[in-house]
Amino acid sequence: MANDKKMVEAITSMNDDFAQWYTDIVKKADLIDYSSVKGCMIIRPYGYAIWENIQKILDSQFKATGHENVCMPLFIPESLLNKEKEHIEGFAPEVAWVTHGGAEPLAERLCVRPTSETLFCDHYANIIKSYRDLPKLYNQWCNVVRWEKTTRPFLRSREFLWQEGHTMHATAEDAEEETLRMLDIYANFYEKTLCIPVIRGKKTDKEKFAGAVATYTVEAMMHDGKALQGGTSHNFGSDFAKAYGVEYLDKDNKLKPCFQTSWGVSTRMIGAIIMAHGDDNGLVLPPKIAPFQLVIIPVQQHKEGVLEKAIEVKNALCDKFRVKLDDSDRSPGWKFSEYEMKGVPLRLELGPRDIEQGQCVIVRRDNREKYFVKLDELESKIPELLAELEKGIYNDALRRREEMTYTCTSLEDLIDTAKNKPGFIKAMWCGDEECEIKLKEIADVTSRCMPFGEEPVGDKCVCCGKKAEKLVYFGKSY
Amino acid sequence: MANDKKMVEAITSMNDDFAQWYTDIVKKADLIDYSSVKGCMIIRPYGYAIWENIQKILDSQFKATGHENVCMPLFIPESLLNKEKEHIEGFAPEVAWVTHGGAEPLAERLCVRPTSETLFCDHYANIIKSYRDLPKLYNQWCNVVRWEKTTRPFLRSREFLWQEGHTMHATAEDAEEETLRMLDIYANFYEKTLCIPVIRGKKTDKEKFAGAVATYTVEAMMHDGKALQGGTSHNFGSDFAKAYGVEYLDKDNKLKPCFQTSWGVSTRMIGAIIMAHGDDNGLVLPPKIAPFQLVIIPVQQHKEGVLEKAIEVKNALCDKFRVKLDDSDRSPGWKFSEYEMKGVPLRLELGPRDIEQGQCVIVRRDNREKYFVKLDELESKIPELLAELEKGIYNDALRRREEMTYTCTSLEDLIDTAKNKPGFIKAMWCGDEECEIKLKEIADVTSRCMPFGEEPVGDKCVCCGKKAEKLVYFGKSY
Repeated sequence: MANDKKMVEAITSMNDDFAQWYTDIVKKADLIDYSSVKGCMIIRPYGYAIWENIQKILDSQFKATGHENVCMPLFIPESLLNKEKEHIEGFAPEVAWVTHGGAEPLAERLCVRPTSETLFCDHYANIIKSYRDLPKLYNQWCNVVRWEKTTRPFLRSREFLWQEGHTMHATAEDAEEETLRMLDIYANFYEKTLCIPVIRGKKTDKEKFAGAVATYTVEAMMHDGKALQGGTSHNFGSDFAKAYGVEYLDKDNKLKPCFQTSWGVSTRMIGAIIMAHGDDNGLVLPPKIAPFQLVIIPVQQHKEGVLEKAIEVKNALCDKFRVKLDDSDRSPGWKFSEYEMKGVPLRLELGPRDIEQGQCVIVRRDNREKYFVKLDELESKIPELLAELEKGIYNDALRRREEMTYTCTSLEDLIDTAKNKPGFIKAMWCGDEECEIKLKEIADVTSRCMPFGEEPVGDKCVCCGKKAEKLVYFGKSY
Repeated sequence: MANDKKMVEAITSMNDDFAQWYTDIVKKADLIDYSSVKGCMIIRPYGYAIWENIQKILDSQFKATGHENVCMPLFIPESLLNKEKEHIEGFAPEVAWVTHGGAEPLAERLCVRPTSETLFCDHYANIIKSYRDLPKLYNQWCNVVRWEKTTRPFLRSREFLWQEGHTMHATAEDAEEETLRMLDIYANFYEKTLCIPVIRGKKTDKEKFAGAVATYTVEAMMHDGKALQGGTSHNFGSDFAKAYGVEYLDKDNKLKPCFQTSWGVSTRMIGAIIMAHGDDNGLVLPPKIAPFQLVIIPVQQHKEGVLEKAIEVKNALCDKFRVKLDDSDRSPGWKFSEYEMKGVPLRLELGPRDIEQGQCVIVRRDNREKYFVKLDELESKIPELLAELEKGIYNDALRRREEMTYTCTSLEDLIDTAKNKPGFIKAMWCGDEECEIKLKEIADVTSRCMPFGEEPVGDKCVCCGKKAEKLVYFGKSY
């Protein structure tokens, strides 16, 4: 039990120091290790298994909506990157440059892809000829690099894993439809799979992607009231396509530019899971992406029949659920802490007395509620408990977001709220970038998005007082 | 039918120009496109789907043998790479160097990983403390970069996709066992999944991996008689572990160095599939990794009931097999060529007269044999035909390899055979690197491997005539 205590003590409480709490969890739950390359992390097996589960579910949804996976090069020649002006201006300060191959300097330097719009455009220009070739719905799972100054595991690292969808369409309407379809897939994934409620909305021009016509986003609130941009979907119109010569011969025999989208989510999602659901005992993992949904911990496992029964229970369940049996020689107390730290949704305790009574104890990770369950009812009871846990952590997150969302109708109120109350601020905005900049300066908040389908909270800009039709969520963000 | 003809004409015959035939196939079967970065390819959806199928099968075999996936950084600091002398000497001439982040020069330049032994060692030194932590069995699926001068899609490209397993063990025996276990997985995968017979063996010291104690390989013969190194498994002993400080406290309370392995296969496998099974009509894909195992082509599809029936057949089969229905307005002839080019194992033709008779025609891709199959027997007949095709293409490749393998006992014979008969040469070797170098110079062959479990073909070195105990496969290789 000494180990047990030590482990619990080692975690900073989230109320004392949220940033340190986060760092403690990513290390103690064995999600990452730091590497010799500043700002680049090692994703350890437990962290990577979460990513694999995320990939599997999202990938099947992409394929079900007609998308195909491809693999584009890691490198972008400088001249290719330079073709779209806004894009290069957005990314140039944060790309890594390859200048030498072996001992020889390259004729043209290559950037390590920060995102692949330019490569996709270049390829699409080669393969799209006619209206019959449209739409083209491609996606890739890959690593990208952005040379950030300040880094944090999962949230902002110099290399990260993501998927980037890049599609080409015959009309502006088709592209807009695709952009919103993918935003919907992200929003549903956050809410149904990760159990994190999100605000869906449109970014202001200031916050949109470099070179996009419109950027849509799903924004989630973390435990500390800060916003995390969960995923973005961009409509590029035909500007990129024109710059890169992506044209098609339409039915009317005229050459027309294509309309383009891109959309992506990344290993950042793991950061969102940590900060949306975690607590002072560690991670709390949504069952659908948890490496193990259930951990079996034998109690008094040296006693006759205990380990045998534990193995029997495991074997009976492991076709239906991801189950781990920990039969190591650590104490049950140590194991309880360990799997709480790792956020395993359900813990199944099984000791000699339980076995006598043909039952076991199941403990929910999120609220530590305890259930006595007959061994022959496990198969039906576990899915019930997992579903209740999903609902529970979603509702907790939603309640927290509602409690920490404030409506401000005056600048004083906004400044005061931003200063004293962590969370989201709903306010009206005139549409002028000047006001966004001013709010950032004086209240340190940025516009997170203009939400879909919400009622206005007034008709005057919270900043300048002019006529305002746009409702905006403001906040501090990761 | 004009299109049909055009397509067939566009492919070079493999007997006329094997290299051009290969290039034609990778393009015409939509496997790759060239990118703006010299030597880096775009893997298109059809090619990437093959890779995804390969990944899925291998990954499950890795996991079944206790391996876990991780994600290491893309970059290696120069100082870290330099720690193991032989290793850096082997790779330095062909790595890409990142020298700038944004506008600023880096304090230390970073190489884009050509392989990740150094990163894994660095991480293992952090996380391995005691004998309880061993073995560590990690793998990663990722991209790597080697700045090759001459490149060819799949076979030798500057960036490629692969998996690299890196494991640490308590003893030399454990490491050797792991090295051979993984070689076995590769060999079985080639033979059972890709239907390509392989020679399993050990590399000579000259041909082994930079820094390894022993390298094992599976070598396959291509249609033109050249060898393709299909996958390698390396035993590193403890040299790397010592250089990087990967030690563990053993049960006897002594600090000991770990013993290490690494093993990898790459998108090269797709090149092997093309060159082992392809013919003058295009690809021939092994069913287990084919994106589609069966393509349904309606004949006279404008006639009433044809398309409906085709859809019905597809729906009945698509849970059990990967099925594509091509109901586009192209002619059946065009479609026949197209899916032969793409190597789809079985073609199902369905016209009005077939439907009347409750049957369809199935054509095997490899030998074009035709079968009339009752529609209500498809579910049992298709797996039979796929299994026969697997056996057929495996046996073809095996027969070809046997016919093109020569035993040489004199230097004159070896020189003559190497010059006039493409294929493998079995010969005895004294073990002296000088002889290997000489054979390369005068006969342009390299040692492919010292095979497991084959009888010697003499007792004198084919080159110098001295006593020789080692049987070697020599050949020209990709």
